[in-house]
Amino acid sequence: MEAYFDNSATTKPSDEVVKAMLEALTIYYGNPSSLHRKGVAVEKLIKTSRKQLAKALGVKDEEIIFTSGGTESNNAAILGTVAAKKRKGNKIITTRIEHPSVLNVFKSLEAKEYEVVYLDVNREGKIDLNQLEQELDAQTILLSIMHVNNEVGTLQPIGEVRKMLERSNSKAIFHVDAVQSFGKLRFNPAKLGIDLLSISGHKVHGPKGIGALYVKKDLQLTPIAYGGGQEIGIRPGTENVPGILGLGAAASTIEEKIEVHISKMDTLRNRLKEGILSEIQDVIINGSINNESAPHILNVSFFGIRGEVLLHMLEQDNIYVSTGSACSSKKSSQSHVLKAMGLTDQEIEGAVRFSFSYENTIEEVDYGLSRLKKHVQELRKIMKR
Amino acid sequence: MEAYFDNSATTKPSDEVVKAMLEALTIYYGNPSSLHRKGVAVEKLIKTSRKQLAKALGVKDEEIIFTSGGTESNNAAILGTVAAKKRKGNKIITTRIEHPSVLNVFKSLEAKEYEVVYLDVNREGKIDLNQLEQELDAQTILLSIMHVNNEVGTLQPIGEVRKMLERSNSKAIFHVDAVQSFGKLRFNPAKLGIDLLSISGHKVHGPKGIGALYVKKDLQLTPIAYGGGQEIGIRPGTENVPGILGLGAAASTIEEKIEVHISKMDTLRNRLKEGILSEIQDVIINGSINNESAPHILNVSFFGIRGEVLLHMLEQDNIYVSTGSACSSKKSSQSHVLKAMGLTDQEIEGAVRFSFSYENTIEEVDYGLSRLKKHVQELRKIMKR
Ligand SMILES: Cc1ncc(COP(=O)(O)O)c(C=O)c1O
Ligand SMILES: Cc1ncc(COP(=O)(O)O)c(C=O)c1O
Repeated sequence: MEAYFDNSATTKPSDEVVKAMLEALTIYYGNPSSLHRKGVAVEKLIKTSRKQLAKALGVKDEEIIFTSGGTESNNAAILGTVAAKKRKGNKIITTRIEHPSVLNVFKSLEAKEYEVVYLDVNREGKIDLNQLEQELDAQTILLSIMHVNNEVGTLQPIGEVRKMLERSNSKAIFHVDAVQSFGKLRFNPAKLGIDLLSISGHKVHGPKGIGALYVKKDLQLTPIAYGGGQEIGIRPGTENVPGILGLGAAASTIEEKIEVHISKMDTLRNRLKEGILSEIQDVIINGSINNESAPHILNVSFFGIRGEVLLHMLEQDNIYVSTGSACSSKKSSQSHVLKAMGLTDQEIEGAVRFSFSYENTIEEVDYGLSRLKKHVQELRKIMKR
Repeated sequence: MEAYFDNSATTKPSDEVVKAMLEALTIYYGNPSSLHRKGVAVEKLIKTSRKQLAKALGVKDEEIIFTSGGTESNNAAILGTVAAKKRKGNKIITTRIEHPSVLNVFKSLEAKEYEVVYLDVNREGKIDLNQLEQELDAQTILLSIMHVNNEVGTLQPIGEVRKMLERSNSKAIFHVDAVQSFGKLRFNPAKLGIDLLSISGHKVHGPKGIGALYVKKDLQLTPIAYGGGQEIGIRPGTENVPGILGLGAAASTIEEKIEVHISKMDTLRNRLKEGILSEIQDVIINGSINNESAPHILNVSFFGIRGEVLLHMLEQDNIYVSTGSACSSKKSSQSHVLKAMGLTDQEIEGAVRFSFSYENTIEEVDYGLSRLKKHVQELRKIMKR
């Protein structure tokens, strides 16, 4: 049996996605900017994909900009906003637990005379609205807060944040990294009062190398690149047609089936969580619980064990998990997320992330649990000797 | 019969490319940053693609950075260089006939206190080395010159330019947009003394949404985006694995067969050119001829005819061509390239670009020529009435 529990790192493209991409590669290979019918046909398909994604988010078609991924969406949102608003103020706020594609953009802006604030989080990985209130001032031009954290699944109070911005009469642009919440929660960026929202294809059974940015109508955004005027001039370059059609197909599946997916992932995660808690001793669940958490992520610290060792033992059984995020896992440094949550070094070292998709099954979870239990016992035995 | 003569706008992905991408989508879907074998396998495949591309260019593997396309490569090269060299000078030089993904980046820098020089071209679309010599000074930090022009196929004297930089003791970084020359000419960026070189997947029977930047070893380049440290930190974001493997496959085909491809395209272009010159009156060939031109582009002005009308008539016969570049053809403005070459309004209006691939055939050319002849005659008859 195989159990791929690393869906927050990346997902397997669905059959519908692969089919849409194959069509783009073999039939609809024209350049959408071409005046002849080989171009016009492709332009229409891009329009359909844009509509599918807009519908899944509940926003207008023209508010969707296709990018090369979540990382580019985050960069375009943050750098594009500070460039557009540079005369309005120089304070920008984010959290300590963002993905590197937000955090490192903010770090790059520290060097450029911006006052950068990194909001703290509590043990559950949640920000403190009071701290946000204190930091918001007339100089604040941008607030970037992730929706669901990729390492622990904690959900931030996005609706409350918008209310706080209003109470504080703040004109700050509100960007949300929704890479880990799209397809995992039903939400509407317009209704939540979000100005800019990032998503990524490969986290939702779409392809790698494609993403999107929701840009609220009439919002000013300076492009981070220049070229042929595609994507309303915000994102130039010949369109990644296979990627766009693939993302459209993935969005369409989400739109139709998200409720089923959520309850499926929730069931799987809870089953594994309860199983671990009842069958394995000396563990803690990291992050928030129940409604304050996304349905697909379970982060667990196994005391006395190194997460990486456990990962490689599970791999021998065709069970795939991760320590921290895929992105930072290649580096030897500790998870900045777990650190910000105040975990001890031992807790951080023993952390493993299980992340689910609607394609996983109960059988996989049970298989995973039994192997996990065995390996943890063995490893702890070795340690005691 | 169908004759797709718009290969400079985009090409049809080859079977090998589609196969490599399908494997990435269905088997090798892991995240290359993941520590387990699903990640490691993908990391290896990326390495192979990088090697294939490096080999086709004759450079070192570690000098290849994958991007989302030619547009991003150009932006990353130009914006990355001016950011890295901003203390060394403020003069940057390019030509009047660059692609918008170079030209518009330079325009954006005009607003930022850079002294920008746009080199003129002659009637054949070639720059004047004397003008370049006069413009080069100690303040010049960047020179960006395209290898092959996308509208007329003219080849710039890249080797001569490098010699000029050396004679002038210039420390300027030399960037070359090779989007239209890769796969169409055999060249080696290292031997030509190029520092940065842009290529794009979809112009060489690879996929859309992938490109690469050759970055000469040890060259300083400031990233234009920040994130998880992929691509030596120069180009963050989860790797576009299907795109990268597709580009690798395309590069491998180029490496093996470029000589055959060149002679095929050259034959097709010459056949169409001779046919037009001998069978249709009142035409001129735009751009340079023979060795000073790429083998795949033929730009012709038909007097008394609007190129766009001809394009749509040919489309009815399943013959696909373009007016100007795909990128600018949607806009009503005149070709900046033909204008810079000094063509009259009438010549610009009557211009049509035929661009070939090694997949085109002599039968297609003969079919295209016969329809072309018929339509030109008809249109001219209508005009006379
Ligand atoms: C929360 C979050 N933001 C951004 C990204 C980056 O997206 P991409 O992998 O498409 O560059 C990721 C995943 O890597 C993520 O989990
Ligand atoms: C000369 C040239 N440079 C750059 C580009 C841009 O590349 P891409 O389409 O991959 O963004 C093109 C084609 O559009 C081109 O012809």
